[in-house]
Amino acid sequence: MPQKVCIALDAMGGDHGAAMVVPGAELSLKRHPDIEFLLFGDRLVVEPLLESRPQLKAASNLVHTDVAVQMHDKPSQALRKGRRRSSMWLAVDAVKKGEADVAVSAGNTGALMATAKIDLRTMAGIDRPAIAALWPNLKGESVVLDLGASIGGDAGHLVELATMGSAMASVLFGLDRPTVGLLNIGVEEVKGLEAVREAGQMLRAGEWPQFEYVGFVEGDDIGKGTVDVVVTEGFSGNIALKTAEGTARQLGQYLKQEMNRSVARRLGYFLARGAFRALAGKMDPRKSNGGVFLGLNGVVIKSHGGTDAEGFAYAVDLGYDMVRHELLAKIGQSLTRHCRATVPARAVAGAAS
Amino acid sequence: MPQKVCIALDAMGGDHGAAMVVPGAELSLKRHPDIEFLLFGDRLVVEPLLESRPQLKAASNLVHTDVAVQMHDKPSQALRKGRRRSSMWLAVDAVKKGEADVAVSAGNTGALMATAKIDLRTMAGIDRPAIAALWPNLKGESVVLDLGASIGGDAGHLVELATMGSAMASVLFGLDRPTVGLLNIGVEEVKGLEAVREAGQMLRAGEWPQFEYVGFVEGDDIGKGTVDVVVTEGFSGNIALKTAEGTARQLGQYLKQEMNRSVARRLGYFLARGAFRALAGKMDPRKSNGGVFLGLNGVVIKSHGGTDAEGFAYAVDLGYDMVRHELLAKIGQSLTRHCRATVPARAVAGAAS
Repeated sequence: MPQKVCIALDAMGGDHGAAMVVPGAELSLKRHPDIEFLLFGDRLVVEPLLESRPQLKAASNLVHTDVAVQMHDKPSQALRKGRRRSSMWLAVDAVKKGEADVAVSAGNTGALMATAKIDLRTMAGIDRPAIAALWPNLKGESVVLDLGASIGGDAGHLVELATMGSAMASVLFGLDRPTVGLLNIGVEEVKGLEAVREAGQMLRAGEWPQFEYVGFVEGDDIGKGTVDVVVTEGFSGNIALKTAEGTARQLGQYLKQEMNRSVARRLGYFLARGAFRALAGKMDPRKSNGGVFLGLNGVVIKSHGGTDAEGFAYAVDLGYDMVRHELLAKIGQSLTRHCRATVPARAVAGAAS
Repeated sequence: MPQKVCIALDAMGGDHGAAMVVPGAELSLKRHPDIEFLLFGDRLVVEPLLESRPQLKAASNLVHTDVAVQMHDKPSQALRKGRRRSSMWLAVDAVKKGEADVAVSAGNTGALMATAKIDLRTMAGIDRPAIAALWPNLKGESVVLDLGASIGGDAGHLVELATMGSAMASVLFGLDRPTVGLLNIGVEEVKGLEAVREAGQMLRAGEWPQFEYVGFVEGDDIGKGTVDVVVTEGFSGNIALKTAEGTARQLGQYLKQEMNRSVARRLGYFLARGAFRALAGKMDPRKSNGGVFLGLNGVVIKSHGGTDAEGFAYAVDLGYDMVRHELLAKIGQSLTRHCRATVPARAVAGAAS
């Protein structure tokens, strides 16, 4: 473990760029004084922001670049103009070169994933990287993946997701053997996609010392916290995430409208304001900000593009935790076990089909 | 339009069977005195329940059968033992024979869909039936489909869903030209499944006098009410629905815990209890109970299996509305237009690929 955790920041990423990234970094530094930042971005924009933050300035090195990936750039555009030059590329590349332990960017997801894949490449034994995030539930939190990196993955990919996601859960929740569920639908007639069924057979047949496979789970099991790790391919994972966010916002809005309808209700709101604050805190999307790119030779954290400094700081915290708990080494160990474990599993799955 | 609306009920369906179905029918009859019921089920169980409800008894005909599909029966089992004999089959068959205008069952989804498909068959121009439901949102309600009948449908199927869903929305919401969105994910790099992209091209290129295609929407647009009709294939649709239900329950639970933590908060709760009741009413899953099977030669409503009499009554109400507003005729009209409209659309999609 390094003395300090070095975090590379794409200072120009996100809807608000450096004006959000720099104060976010400052917040996270207050919580983790053992962070060193490597900031990549436009000197003219970033330097003034550092000047007014002496503690952060002392813990930061700024590397100038005037190329920045825009939020609406397509991955191909981002690579064409940004390769080896953009603040995003340089942040990721610092991880590759070993100058940083983790990179954090609030830039656009597609461009960041394309950059990370090309520069860091996938780990041996992993076909496609994934995006994982923490999801608050009634029992605490779970890891949900994939949230949009791999669309329509096959059964083997779902098994990889189980392996990577359980490594992340064991790191973050301090669990020896996290429970894993495969997201599926409950309609008996169809029983879900072919790939999900096949992955279920593989997971049931294999031996997984690093996690406990508990079977299929449904959409409402995510909020219940039925399992520590929820595995699904990226299309449905992204839709589940966005739908949950939308539902939470919808309920908050309803409640606000209703609480404002009379004096008694407004008084009631005042008396119980602590409860509402606690609820808002629990569901604060900023607190679960940060998608972790898994399966690459390096850790990259994607912050929500529209977040504020507070939200960005949570993404930086997440990157810090990943480094301190040696996520990559843990995934590597899991993969070694996984390769051993899947030999009989694949044979069984083949025999059953 | 018939003088009365005749509704066939599978009296034995659901976790609680006739003990829930019969009082549910009574509730709906109070709201719609022009309903006639055709009840299929075990005379020994159903008759005593009717005896104590003279108004309902007067509006009902009971047809005895002692075969009932169980909640855990697989579709194949349900058909083997229930074909032409089970309360579920007979209720659906009453629609086919023209003895009833709509069938309502709380039996298991897979068995009911298999029964409906085999007995009623799909409408001309429809490849696969779908399950649609009403989804409460910040602006009112939207129709969301498919919720689990067709897994992994192709682009043509998604266009069919748009056609059928918009017919349902126009019937239920009284809209001339409901807006339609295709559920997709926002990650630029991948832009969703091939079928969704292709369906987007077809919908954009075609002419749709019966609805307005507005483009892709994301999971959080469902709760916002961005469009009147949200179209997706059954796997992600089912996961979105269950995830939203889970999130709503999770938030309700949080709030309950928090409101109980102090005397002041409990007092606040008491003062604002009307707001909480309104919120609970708005999100009451019983009120949006009822999945509509679309694309068959007859209307079948699937009630949630675990619902109570109140919830079942909402499913019956939904069936009533569908008949009164001539859903089938409306879908038929849409399909005729759709066939005309998709000829150029398919040509365009072909040219683009």
